[in-house]
Amino acid sequence: MSQVRRFGDGFPPKNIAVVGVSRNDQTSHPGYTGLGLLRMLKESGFHGNVYPVNPYATNIAGFQVYNSLTSIPQPPDLVIITVPAAAVPQVIEDCIAARAINVQICTSGFGETGEEGKRLEHRIKEIASQGGLRVIGPNCMGFHVPSVNMRMHPDVPLVPGPVAFVSQSGGHARIFLIRGPELGFGFSKAISYGNALILDAPDFLEYLGTDPETGIICMYLEGIKDGRRFMELVRKINHKKPVVIWKGGLTDSGARAAASHTASLGGTRQVWDAFFKQTGAIQVGSIEEMGEVAMTFLLIKPSAGKRVAVFAAGGGSSVATGDICAEEGLEVPAFSEQTRKGLLDFITLVNQGVANPIDVPSVVVDFSSLLRAYEILAADPMIDIVILHLGAEFFLGPTQDVIEELHKYILSAPAFKSHAKPVVVALSEEGHVKDTDSYAQSLRKKGIPAYNSLRRACRAINRFANYYEFIGASARL
Amino acid sequence: MSQVRRFGDGFPPKNIAVVGVSRNDQTSHPGYTGLGLLRMLKESGFHGNVYPVNPYATNIAGFQVYNSLTSIPQPPDLVIITVPAAAVPQVIEDCIAARAINVQICTSGFGETGEEGKRLEHRIKEIASQGGLRVIGPNCMGFHVPSVNMRMHPDVPLVPGPVAFVSQSGGHARIFLIRGPELGFGFSKAISYGNALILDAPDFLEYLGTDPETGIICMYLEGIKDGRRFMELVRKINHKKPVVIWKGGLTDSGARAAASHTASLGGTRQVWDAFFKQTGAIQVGSIEEMGEVAMTFLLIKPSAGKRVAVFAAGGGSSVATGDICAEEGLEVPAFSEQTRKGLLDFITLVNQGVANPIDVPSVVVDFSSLLRAYEILAADPMIDIVILHLGAEFFLGPTQDVIEELHKYILSAPAFKSHAKPVVVALSEEGHVKDTDSYAQSLRKKGIPAYNSLRRACRAINRFANYYEFIGASARL
Repeated sequence: MSQVRRFGDGFPPKNIAVVGVSRNDQTSHPGYTGLGLLRMLKESGFHGNVYPVNPYATNIAGFQVYNSLTSIPQPPDLVIITVPAAAVPQVIEDCIAARAINVQICTSGFGETGEEGKRLEHRIKEIASQGGLRVIGPNCMGFHVPSVNMRMHPDVPLVPGPVAFVSQSGGHARIFLIRGPELGFGFSKAISYGNALILDAPDFLEYLGTDPETGIICMYLEGIKDGRRFMELVRKINHKKPVVIWKGGLTDSGARAAASHTASLGGTRQVWDAFFKQTGAIQVGSIEEMGEVAMTFLLIKPSAGKRVAVFAAGGGSSVATGDICAEEGLEVPAFSEQTRKGLLDFITLVNQGVANPIDVPSVVVDFSSLLRAYEILAADPMIDIVILHLGAEFFLGPTQDVIEELHKYILSAPAFKSHAKPVVVALSEEGHVKDTDSYAQSLRKKGIPAYNSLRRACRAINRFANYYEFIGASARL
Repeated sequence: MSQVRRFGDGFPPKNIAVVGVSRNDQTSHPGYTGLGLLRMLKESGFHGNVYPVNPYATNIAGFQVYNSLTSIPQPPDLVIITVPAAAVPQVIEDCIAARAINVQICTSGFGETGEEGKRLEHRIKEIASQGGLRVIGPNCMGFHVPSVNMRMHPDVPLVPGPVAFVSQSGGHARIFLIRGPELGFGFSKAISYGNALILDAPDFLEYLGTDPETGIICMYLEGIKDGRRFMELVRKINHKKPVVIWKGGLTDSGARAAASHTASLGGTRQVWDAFFKQTGAIQVGSIEEMGEVAMTFLLIKPSAGKRVAVFAAGGGSSVATGDICAEEGLEVPAFSEQTRKGLLDFITLVNQGVANPIDVPSVVVDFSSLLRAYEILAADPMIDIVILHLGAEFFLGPTQDVIEELHKYILSAPAFKSHAKPVVVALSEEGHVKDTDSYAQSLRKKGIPAYNSLRRACRAINRFANYYEFIGASARL
């Protein structure tokens, strides 16, 4: 790989040129055309200048149009290219002439479609490298920067926050940018970079490692061209900012799809297993999981402990609760005699149980008992974290009033708010008996991590604890 | 274990006596009290006679009341006991005097609460065994039999169908009885049997094995007292009717909860692994999964094949699709040259791909292309089943109109309806971006299996194919 200048100059862009803007737009994908991008920049209130380029028009969508890249008033920080694949090499040459810094090629139909596309890519790469251009794409959706009102797609919200997302897939970026705010967090930057012809994940990672807006770095990767550089960067950055990675294409059929998607060659599962083991980066397997891990880091104070006390409501549910916690790598210790006695002071064993998990339908609908139980668990040095598992049965059982009262209680009780010992809420594991997502969202808004299933809660807590264990162990070396 | 008479006499009951009926009822669990049960039998329109027993009343909830079990006009097929634990032994003696056949003890507070409860259980067992009573429970919710309008809990629907459920947990039974009809099926019988003092899972299984209303047997188990008998029964019955088992308490913490729930001793994971391997019974890990497996058996014709062709909409999504299918044990073969060529006749590779998975946003919104693609795949002898994965991106992408058109199309296209090659639909894997459950429900009503996640779809199909492979291999021995 030829090295290009570090990514970061001219980013976030103060001015953007858009090449390939028609006056009319019949496509069903408004975010992917020049005109769609232009409208999106306008409607989002992008902070900088926008220069549409079209040799035959003077005004499009309220913007003054320029006939060529070289005729715009200043060298563009970013040129966004949406012209057909065959026309891209000429535009790249124009970018060099216009002294552009960054170039984003949205256009698809390159290496991912076969040999002809690969030849075209190769030509673009030669031209751009000679001109020192930093090219993102092709086959990408580019940037999302809430601090300058730059949006990646018309339906993603502009919510600023500490999470960065570097994604080889525009689709995944879009889903994550929608899901993040529902999980209670916003974004510093999101970058969809497609085929990684010149700029690749390591370039963006290096930038985000020192970006003051970014506290957690999430990545969706299909392939990495310079694996050694990537590994060194992750090893270094992960100690300061958690690096959460979803590596797609670890199976044969996933890898085949990745080749067809971004022309990526992915590396074997063994290689990636070693990568995660050596860097301590956090591996996840879906956008949802990535979001839950980010939420966990943002809402709970650092802990390497995995010993949980779990409340469940219902006998069968409490058995499942114990199994799920253990299967997902958490420890569910039997309570000490003291803790057990303390709980039995006000919990009867008929239709309930104070083994850990604690099967206490009465406690989750009786707020003073819930607080009393929490205080006993918070005082137990064998317990690191308290999980309140509200399964399907809970949401069917009490009236809506009780659910709302419990909700208010969790959000207002000083003991829970102070996080003397972290409390997380896991909602229905079993099917779709009730839609509990809006309930979860309001808990998160108040700083209580809420997960849409116990299994996912446990998985996120396990990864969270593993991270701090790794960081702590490395610090002692 | 002392053997009792086979379960089945007097079941479903033609007459029921309820002991422990108060005139007023302050509890928050209406289904668990005598009065609650009485009202439930009345409101459900139970087909037989109901005899409340109370020495001090003459009429409760519109039923004539009897002063004692022996004063009711005929020997009861079923006596339901809801009196406090300490009063149960006397009622059991009364049941013998009244020549009752089956006795259901709802009351909790026995073996699961400690030594005193165990002693009380032991006494009940002695009395009942001497009198030849078939006792279900204690600590249970009893029976649900739609064909005679007998309901287990006030909020579960009475939907008849081919699925039986034998559950040591009343809570799980309740959730499954609600979830089943949403997944498109009803129930022959459901039995919540709690502590299994006398009647245990093998007794119910033996009955269901020859019950003409039952086609699939689902079970939630915490412990089995006579493991050898159970294994022999499963081995025999599973060849005719799939036996789907969720064994709860396979971890230490799950087992601790099970001991506290139904006083069960569960057996190790190794023992159960061997059990599933030898019997070919289908292991699942949640109510949701149990429901999805049952749905699969009911809606797809028998097949031992695991080779799938998968449609996905979106590049990143297609990579995840390939990974998930492979991780869950399905084969996603690369297409033959002929199939690939056939697809390329009308699918462009720009922003799409015809690797398997097939990344075809255009095809899933263009109905004639979808049918054309399906016909090519249906003619490919390397493919056993076609999966249409509509991820979060799909539900964000097209307008609602397109989704509804696609929906109508899937439901009406003769090729799909004839099931020349099974088509299943897997909905959004990623989070809760859209609620797709009602969409899934309407597909199921038309005979198309629809799953709320691709991972769950693959898992169910894999178990389904493994079952027929096991049955086929056994038949050849």
